[in-house]
Amino acid sequence: MKKILFISGDNCDDSEIQYPLFRLFEEGYTVSIAAKEKKPISAKHYLKVDVDLTIDEICASDYDALLLPGGMAPEKLRQIPKVLEIVNVFFNENKPIASICHGQQILISAKILNGKKATCYPGIRDDLINAGANYVNEQVVVDGNLVTSRRPEDLPYFMREFVKLLG
Amino acid sequence: MKKILFISGDNCDDSEIQYPLFRLFEEGYTVSIAAKEKKPISAKHYLKVDVDLTIDEICASDYDALLLPGGMAPEKLRQIPKVLEIVNVFFNENKPIASICHGQQILISAKILNGKKATCYPGIRDDLINAGANYVNEQVVVDGNLVTSRRPEDLPYFMREFVKLLG
Repeated sequence: MKKILFISGDNCDDSEIQYPLFRLFEEGYTVSIAAKEKKPISAKHYLKVDVDLTIDEICASDYDALLLPGGMAPEKLRQIPKVLEIVNVFFNENKPIASICHGQQILISAKILNGKKATCYPGIRDDLINAGANYVNEQVVVDGNLVTSRRPEDLPYFMREFVKLLG
Repeated sequence: MKKILFISGDNCDDSEIQYPLFRLFEEGYTVSIAAKEKKPISAKHYLKVDVDLTIDEICASDYDALLLPGGMAPEKLRQIPKVLEIVNVFFNENKPIASICHGQQILISAKILNGKKATCYPGIRDDLINAGANYVNEQVVVDGNLVTSRRPEDLPYFMREFVKLLG
């Protein structure tokens, strides 16, 4: 039974947290959602999403893969050193990392994108390029164990590739 | 390439139209969304969903399966005779029908539930029973080619069974 970690927070995009969560449930995986505080996340539009643990409580080795939803949460999360450490643990252990939309702001700050082929929300495209990524404008981009997409409309393609990678 | 028909309208539940739509895209199926008018559906909370055809334009034999999202749209749709005719065509041709939450109000009015094992949103449970259904309180209920669920939180289980049925 694979265990997947999500890191998110208030004002995340509703679809970008719910679709992956439900999709992984459908596959029978276990998902744990971490946020700064252990209280339900209020997504940008209306959803409330239960939080399983705080970021401080995360032990990266407990999980097989990491998923970063977008929205306005990543701009706060990228300022938390523990979040960046966790991303680096997954990256260095070659565990799958999936990131969509503004989730890639966390990957930029974690300094793991240099030389990586990736995509992101158009508004942060130049930041992705400045972080050394090989930016491409596609629904989903897979480079090794890194899966990236641009926006909510890409979720079907994003999750198709992430589920394939999880095996 | 299987073709799936959705019938919905304004104030449908956001997740109950988006999750099935994206999930079927992920499988490579074609989805056509029908509504009373050919203008984007405004879901209950925030989503806008493109409409492909009007209910008047539906030719049931063009599709392999039918899906009815919930929310507040079904209470209007059940009053449209053509909607009930279409449901009966799918039912009589033994094509898969998936319905969630308040979508089952349409099935009640289409008079196809007598003797069928099914579930629905708790608020319309008594109506389902009065329509002759064998009501059960489960995440997802499959009776032949009929798949029913209770609410948005059931979507992973609803779509797991529906995708399985589509083959």
